[in-house]
Amino acid sequence: MKRRDFLKKAGVGAIAASTVFGPVYAQTMPRLRWRMATSWPRSLDTLFGSAEIVAKRVAEMTDGRFEITPYPAGEIAPGLQVLDVVQAGNVEMGHTANYYYIGKSPSLAFDAGVPFGLNPRQQNAWLYFGGGLQAMQRVAADFNAITFPAGNTGVQMGGWFRKEIRGLEDLKGLRFRIPGLGGQVMARLGVTVQTLAGGEIFLALDRGAIDGAEWVGPYDDERLGLHRAARFYYYPGWWEPGSTLSVLVNLDRWRSLPKEYQEIVKAACAEANERTLAEYDTKNAPALARLQRAGAQLRPFPTSVLQAANREATALYEEIAARDATYRGIYENWKKFRDESRRWFGFNEFRYEDFVRTLR
Amino acid sequence: MKRRDFLKKAGVGAIAASTVFGPVYAQTMPRLRWRMATSWPRSLDTLFGSAEIVAKRVAEMTDGRFEITPYPAGEIAPGLQVLDVVQAGNVEMGHTANYYYIGKSPSLAFDAGVPFGLNPRQQNAWLYFGGGLQAMQRVAADFNAITFPAGNTGVQMGGWFRKEIRGLEDLKGLRFRIPGLGGQVMARLGVTVQTLAGGEIFLALDRGAIDGAEWVGPYDDERLGLHRAARFYYYPGWWEPGSTLSVLVNLDRWRSLPKEYQEIVKAACAEANERTLAEYDTKNAPALARLQRAGAQLRPFPTSVLQAANREATALYEEIAARDATYRGIYENWKKFRDESRRWFGFNEFRYEDFVRTLR
Repeated sequence: MKRRDFLKKAGVGAIAASTVFGPVYAQTMPRLRWRMATSWPRSLDTLFGSAEIVAKRVAEMTDGRFEITPYPAGEIAPGLQVLDVVQAGNVEMGHTANYYYIGKSPSLAFDAGVPFGLNPRQQNAWLYFGGGLQAMQRVAADFNAITFPAGNTGVQMGGWFRKEIRGLEDLKGLRFRIPGLGGQVMARLGVTVQTLAGGEIFLALDRGAIDGAEWVGPYDDERLGLHRAARFYYYPGWWEPGSTLSVLVNLDRWRSLPKEYQEIVKAACAEANERTLAEYDTKNAPALARLQRAGAQLRPFPTSVLQAANREATALYEEIAARDATYRGIYENWKKFRDESRRWFGFNEFRYEDFVRTLR
Repeated sequence: MKRRDFLKKAGVGAIAASTVFGPVYAQTMPRLRWRMATSWPRSLDTLFGSAEIVAKRVAEMTDGRFEITPYPAGEIAPGLQVLDVVQAGNVEMGHTANYYYIGKSPSLAFDAGVPFGLNPRQQNAWLYFGGGLQAMQRVAADFNAITFPAGNTGVQMGGWFRKEIRGLEDLKGLRFRIPGLGGQVMARLGVTVQTLAGGEIFLALDRGAIDGAEWVGPYDDERLGLHRAARFYYYPGWWEPGSTLSVLVNLDRWRSLPKEYQEIVKAACAEANERTLAEYDTKNAPALARLQRAGAQLRPFPTSVLQAANREATALYEEIAARDATYRGIYENWKKFRDESRRWFGFNEFRYEDFVRTLR
């Protein structure tokens, strides 16, 4: 480009092009009030906070014309029935984790994440660029819903145990609170699996009704007080290596939205997806230090346990794939993506982390 | 809550509350056309694509009323002078990496990332929840601009070398293309640092005018053809462990926007921030395999090189902090955040990655 042209384009003349042109446009942006059922107690400011981010950002982007109110689990719907009430149209939308609904379709496990699955960045890569989100939205459409990623917890911790786990034999007969596919894998390793809602875990563990329990990670676990009921804190939480939270919207309601509102909701979900992970990454670090000061003993799961758990997880996925064609199609695509991605993450990213963790 | 109340709240009656209420609102959402200068050639669909995500999402969320056009480096502004033209008001906004402007303020290095600094998730955590973005926006305000994170490359690769680097002695006198703080650290290790624009690297390396060059990572490096000019591909790129790209907006222009448009621009930037990383994480994996099939030889930097580089990087930061009070304040906050975060990432996340990379 000639300098003269450059100046012409970049100079004062350019400002004119940026000013308001045409008449002010009379819009048809309706005022809406929607309710959002969630799977979270209000006290968990990370998880419930993720739903609040979506609501807040939609309000800000529409000057308050599109108002969404998130409700804690149990207020307008039971925490694990968010998809049900969205499907029925009882509420317009929800904030949840889609692995709660694997009883309806096992494919939904991949939306939230599975044992020995993708880490948070790989989850986003698969969902946004690996065909994952389209696949998940096809499954959700069978339940009259559309789904969007809207939060991530990071690699979770392996939970709290009253006794040390030195090998596979220590898992046999252990009464451990763990839901979902992680629970199914644990059961195959001989664990007596318990499912309890978040608010019931502390008391059960403290009274010895269970021998151990997993929840999320340092920040959320500290809020439940689990470190006061069990001493050994294991890592990593191989059953939830990057759990994605999701916004569900009733499909009829979704289609009734003006296009701009649809795009604004999508953007708000993407923001919640990114910010919730950043919030966990910020809050877990000091929470871990506090837990250790309070007496928590950190322990890595023995490699033998990880290897056996991975074998059982793989066997479980193959069994589901053998009886569910939709799952099989998604699983094959996901597995190829995972293996290729794992190779890339396993050397460049890994080598950097491996070095910097030795500093100070 | 009683079951009766629950049914009343969740039942059919709830739908009424969600319908449109009040008259359709006459809005004052102006039609705007803005230009966005970028630091990227159009051929790099990841970097320039990140600017395009911002423009596309703003258009979608405003039904096309707010139109932003991104221009490749050199068309309406030189690639490394985006802040300059935004500051002057010659263009309304830009998409760039703020470490290009450390000559104006060394503090801006932390916005994009520094050698041995934060990984992409830590960057987001520090920017959004660790006080980083507020600090960066205070610095940008001195240049009549506001800045938002709008893209991330992931941990970059260590670049292409014609000869193997077996230790520090192999760096002495080596002519290596590397800009910014990474270049300053390399210079302290005896490297003869070269700065060349992206489009000039291949020819210089192929003709032997330089002995090596770094660019970004497998996908972008492949597009420049660097594997055809040098054989040894080093990792990790310790000088760019999670480079954040940024949108800059002229502060007067920013203040002239309706509040909704400001919020929509913020959301579009957050989406670009997340999606660009996901796109790199998706595209780098198969690109690496292609490069290896084409003959690239992967080599880790020797630990002695990483250690010496980290020592020099730390010394450099301390030197800048001694002469620049703004930098010192930000550096101290950043360093505390980094050390705490590194401890958390270094065990739970690390242990998971360390295990899964051994699978298959």
